[in-house]
Amino acid sequence: MKAVIYHEPGAISWDEVPTPTILDDTDAIVRVDTVTICGTDLHIWKGDLPEVASGRVLGHEAVGTVESVGAGVKVVRPGDRVLVSCITSCGACAYCRQGHFGLCTGGGGWILGHLIDGTQAEYVRVPFADTSTYVLPAAMRDEEAVMLADLLPTGYEVGVLNGHVAPGSTVAVVGAGPIGLSSILGARLYSPSLVIAIDLAQSRLEAAKRFGADVIVNNGTEDALEVVRAATEGLGVDVAIEAVGVPATFELAAQLVRPGGHVANVGVHGKPATLHLEDLWAKDVTITTGLVDTTAIPTLLRLVGAQTIDASQFVTHRFEFGEFMTAYDVFHRAAETQALKVVLTP
Amino acid sequence: MKAVIYHEPGAISWDEVPTPTILDDTDAIVRVDTVTICGTDLHIWKGDLPEVASGRVLGHEAVGTVESVGAGVKVVRPGDRVLVSCITSCGACAYCRQGHFGLCTGGGGWILGHLIDGTQAEYVRVPFADTSTYVLPAAMRDEEAVMLADLLPTGYEVGVLNGHVAPGSTVAVVGAGPIGLSSILGARLYSPSLVIAIDLAQSRLEAAKRFGADVIVNNGTEDALEVVRAATEGLGVDVAIEAVGVPATFELAAQLVRPGGHVANVGVHGKPATLHLEDLWAKDVTITTGLVDTTAIPTLLRLVGAQTIDASQFVTHRFEFGEFMTAYDVFHRAAETQALKVVLTP
Amino acid sequence: MKAVIYHEPGAISWDEVPTPTILDDTDAIVRVDTVTICGTDLHIWKGDLPEVASGRVLGHEAVGTVESVGAGVKVVRPGDRVLVSCITSCGACAYCRQGHFGLCTGGGGWILGHLIDGTQAEYVRVPFADTSTYVLPAAMRDEEAVMLADLLPTGYEVGVLNGHVAPGSTVAVVGAGPIGLSSILGARLYSPSLVIAIDLAQSRLEAAKRFGADVIVNNGTEDALEVVRAATEGLGVDVAIEAVGVPATFELAAQLVRPGGHVANVGVHGKPATLHLEDLWAKDVTITTGLVDTTAIPTLLRLVGAQTIDASQFVTHRFEFGEFMTAYDVFHRAAETQALKVVLTP
Amino acid sequence: MKAVIYHEPGAISWDEVPTPTILDDTDAIVRVDTVTICGTDLHIWKGDLPEVASGRVLGHEAVGTVESVGAGVKVVRPGDRVLVSCITSCGACAYCRQGHFGLCTGGGGWILGHLIDGTQAEYVRVPFADTSTYVLPAAMRDEEAVMLADLLPTGYEVGVLNGHVAPGSTVAVVGAGPIGLSSILGARLYSPSLVIAIDLAQSRLEAAKRFGADVIVNNGTEDALEVVRAATEGLGVDVAIEAVGVPATFELAAQLVRPGGHVANVGVHGKPATLHLEDLWAKDVTITTGLVDTTAIPTLLRLVGAQTIDASQFVTHRFEFGEFMTAYDVFHRAAETQALKVVLTP
Repeated sequence: MKAVIYHEPGAISWDEVPTPTILDDTDAIVRVDTVTICGTDLHIWKGDLPEVASGRVLGHEAVGTVESVGAGVKVVRPGDRVLVSCITSCGACAYCRQGHFGLCTGGGGWILGHLIDGTQAEYVRVPFADTSTYVLPAAMRDEEAVMLADLLPTGYEVGVLNGHVAPGSTVAVVGAGPIGLSSILGARLYSPSLVIAIDLAQSRLEAAKRFGADVIVNNGTEDALEVVRAATEGLGVDVAIEAVGVPATFELAAQLVRPGGHVANVGVHGKPATLHLEDLWAKDVTITTGLVDTTAIPTLLRLVGAQTIDASQFVTHRFEFGEFMTAYDVFHRAAETQALKVVLTP
Repeated sequence: MKAVIYHEPGAISWDEVPTPTILDDTDAIVRVDTVTICGTDLHIWKGDLPEVASGRVLGHEAVGTVESVGAGVKVVRPGDRVLVSCITSCGACAYCRQGHFGLCTGGGGWILGHLIDGTQAEYVRVPFADTSTYVLPAAMRDEEAVMLADLLPTGYEVGVLNGHVAPGSTVAVVGAGPIGLSSILGARLYSPSLVIAIDLAQSRLEAAKRFGADVIVNNGTEDALEVVRAATEGLGVDVAIEAVGVPATFELAAQLVRPGGHVANVGVHGKPATLHLEDLWAKDVTITTGLVDTTAIPTLLRLVGAQTIDASQFVTHRFEFGEFMTAYDVFHRAAETQALKVVLTP
Repeated sequence: MKAVIYHEPGAISWDEVPTPTILDDTDAIVRVDTVTICGTDLHIWKGDLPEVASGRVLGHEAVGTVESVGAGVKVVRPGDRVLVSCITSCGACAYCRQGHFGLCTGGGGWILGHLIDGTQAEYVRVPFADTSTYVLPAAMRDEEAVMLADLLPTGYEVGVLNGHVAPGSTVAVVGAGPIGLSSILGARLYSPSLVIAIDLAQSRLEAAKRFGADVIVNNGTEDALEVVRAATEGLGVDVAIEAVGVPATFELAAQLVRPGGHVANVGVHGKPATLHLEDLWAKDVTITTGLVDTTAIPTLLRLVGAQTIDASQFVTHRFEFGEFMTAYDVFHRAAETQALKVVLTP
Repeated sequence: MKAVIYHEPGAISWDEVPTPTILDDTDAIVRVDTVTICGTDLHIWKGDLPEVASGRVLGHEAVGTVESVGAGVKVVRPGDRVLVSCITSCGACAYCRQGHFGLCTGGGGWILGHLIDGTQAEYVRVPFADTSTYVLPAAMRDEEAVMLADLLPTGYEVGVLNGHVAPGSTVAVVGAGPIGLSSILGARLYSPSLVIAIDLAQSRLEAAKRFGADVIVNNGTEDALEVVRAATEGLGVDVAIEAVGVPATFELAAQLVRPGGHVANVGVHGKPATLHLEDLWAKDVTITTGLVDTTAIPTLLRLVGAQTIDASQFVTHRFEFGEFMTAYDVFHRAAETQALKVVLTP
């Protein structure tokens, strides 16, 4: 079959590799129908994740059709149309038993397209299929569903739930890329009274408005702290969501929050940040970090099904599998191409 | 009357000042029966808190007898024996209405011995007396009760409750001074399975054992991270409580916590710390900061009354008011004197 | 001044009474600008609440202008336009300190128009004014604001928050009178996936649709249990809200809930109900009761201000004070008049 | 092999039946080393649970040694000494994924000794072995461990956690049989300020004292409501735990609770109770029901291991398997024999 292969920093290709087969009896082989590219895939491409081996098939998000299952797979059946979660859950370790699938110590966690071959391929082997895939309702379109593999649960769980967004909350989202937009969409589920989006790119800020931001701040030209204070009686926001992943944006989020508020870090960081404990020690602030668990997938499936969430509004570009290198390029040059999410189908 | 007066960095004295009178109708004048000295008072003495004005009466913890009350005081009556909380609460601002008395924006918060004259005196004016004092049961001794003005609620609220200690938890307490010991005592209320105390001073570690630590680690000579990992199947603790207030101890606490765990900062910090987001971003860690609210005082009063907590075990030295400068000296030289808490009575 | 006076069961009148004056120094005298009638007022009229004394001025909801305040009132000033909460809070008792204002043991709770004279009058004395009134933003209209005195917080706190409605929840609301509609409106703030309204009157069910119910069930002609099961894969709803106050509707709510779900009772009951513990004991069900605390007023004010909630849609009839008896009659004959809420102004 | 067989109401015997074999690949066959008898087994014996088929092997609690496992069992290995939970969890259904193992819709829940053959036998087949058994630390004795199969988690999860017992709580436990004692033991983990045990039998009340009750009330001769009010300033307790299972005790529990408190039902009920909503509607009371999930087993294992809980104090009688009928008789006549828990070994 064909798949996106990581060779070395800077080098990926759409190439022929062996079709996967069942290795463990809890595996399913899924024919990939729709797949997308994540910002993390770009990091792998650049070489930022040295644990990704040469020859690895990339991708951790997919909608597909089950081809075959091992003897230990009880729930999922061949022919089922399923969502493949970015997080694999063994279902039996202490973390999985408590809903912390992202911290699975039984062989799961984020492994697809990372430690084992992934979904940007014609077929993918999905370990622990019963606890790592979700059968999709017939009415849900593939390109809506694929947004629930990683993007929507990440903004919702790591940004909105960790940040304790509640009705009436004031929320600042630092970074209006796909994860920031997903956080805005998730925050709106709780009827906040004010959502402020902060970014350097005007096009992303315009997207933030479409996704539900009430106020946008270009912190290249405006002072975000001043805007936030003016909008919150000088206090700061109830919840600041960091959706970029660099020290400066984390530090900004920590400045924007009111005494007693929450800072929810969603961004993937490569460097330490400075924590101003000399200011924060008496401010009753809660700071959270987190990898998505995808425990919210059933909730989000209900909400997409009820048309409360329009998941397809993330999709800006559509390609066929043969155009995978073009798709990577378009997604990589998002600043120019205005790409939010690209989806690929066979 | 006589009181402890702050003059300038390094200079305090026990001196004559005017006896306080009622200024606002919600004030009470309290005759001070028992008082203690807090680590924060030492910081003021050194000049670390420039907002403390010259001439200020120090002290924010006391047990006393109400002498007189303003017309707006409805609950507390002259003659009542009361605990004076270190936190003054207006009772009406949005923060007070949510139990965040430490963040009071209505004129309260930590003001006694800080922004207004305090309790290390023969008499003290207590603003918002109805919501800032607690009438004491007859059976409770002054020197037990005075530990509830600040020390016990701080360890319990900011360390134990913010840290989400629960039955069976593994807990590391970094720093075994009075606040660390208070955190250990508070943690024991939840029946943890393991409490590890970490400090540089052997005498404080011995105290930690007496207060309920299962394991003690001298991190001058032992590798705390190694000890913690060995005791927790390599994972780290469920809850790490920082009770010192310098960057190194905060950073150690953040290293000791397991994925999915809590870091509760109790220490008063003067400098920023480094937050290793490159390690923590995917670890589902929750970090909290906080000034005490003293909302737990009623609970702690019940528990001291029920003899579940032995509050008096903190008291190592007792003095009369005339010996205030000696008491400061003994408390300041705690490393030599083994002082935990000193109490003073008229 | 003129006021609505309760004389005896069945007898109320709009009559001359002495204008109230300040009795305690924490009182405010408020000139009533807008007032409404509550279902509870109808119960008093009928004589269902024997604790209401003859000669009592009725009413516990108002928007008004502060005329004068006692010496102990610190925050509210003469001239302020305020919302008078249906719950008076002393601000100092143990319950008030924990946000349980409805359970105030310091002289508050539901007292207006119940144990002391109320708001259906030209002037009202409001005890504990600083903690029982809310200054209104200039842009908010009186008739929106007056819905926040009781109606909106009751549905939101006692129905939605107690019931733990969350994004994606399935919710059944039994009873589509004003309190049921308020619960629907409140539930929508959390983006449920399905809201089912159940009532016997088609006109109320039509209103429920307008307020956000996805499905309506006339349980005079349809089997509510069957409809709910069909809509929830046979399980029952996550949250069942009882908004009527008779045994049959409570028992229906307890039948509609799924294993692991919540039953939130909002209705005011005069008789016991049967609790089918032989079915429920193993079903992990949580049942809550509650009088409103009105702690949610600040949140709801933000949301009305942000136009997330349209509070004025409850208002079906408007009268002048001189027409109070007509207003009572119209509200009492709601089945015919289609009245939801009637508002009165001088 | 030999096993306890249910024949018909009133008729059980220790008899020869076929040794179980693996039916599903997630099964384990466990050799039973230690087993106990539950109050529910007595109900089955009497014929109260008609769903139990004639010929069924009884028992849902055991410590044993794994003999063999199906191909789908990944974690548990032959030779492992394991605790068999009373609740079987499929690990994949929506309820199991949320930790509600007792509500498992994937073929688990309470099935052992109920819907499939159980543990009062030389061997037992345990479905979904990886998610329904717990490998035991070497140092833990069988008769301690077997108390964690049902008894200890039931009191802790359904009584203490559902009841929200917290440090300083006042707690009333209605019923001082094994489940009531387990609730008292569990409540003590949270350092309540007062635990009141209520029962009709003096011997059970004496046991309650040993297990940690501060006050005992014989409600055959004393008025429990009066005692509780006298001990709680007239308010009632924070938490009332029902541990009997008849209408009168539930109704008593609902009377004993203070406004804002919790009633946690643990008893197994065969009849409806009366819920006095005319009193409770405004009292802000939370009532919970629940079958145990046994999610607390890992926590309780830690606490028994740390000697914080002495699980063996429940064991009053010890028998060999050949004496099973005597053991049932002794346990059945607990009022005379003072039996709390009987354990049996081969």
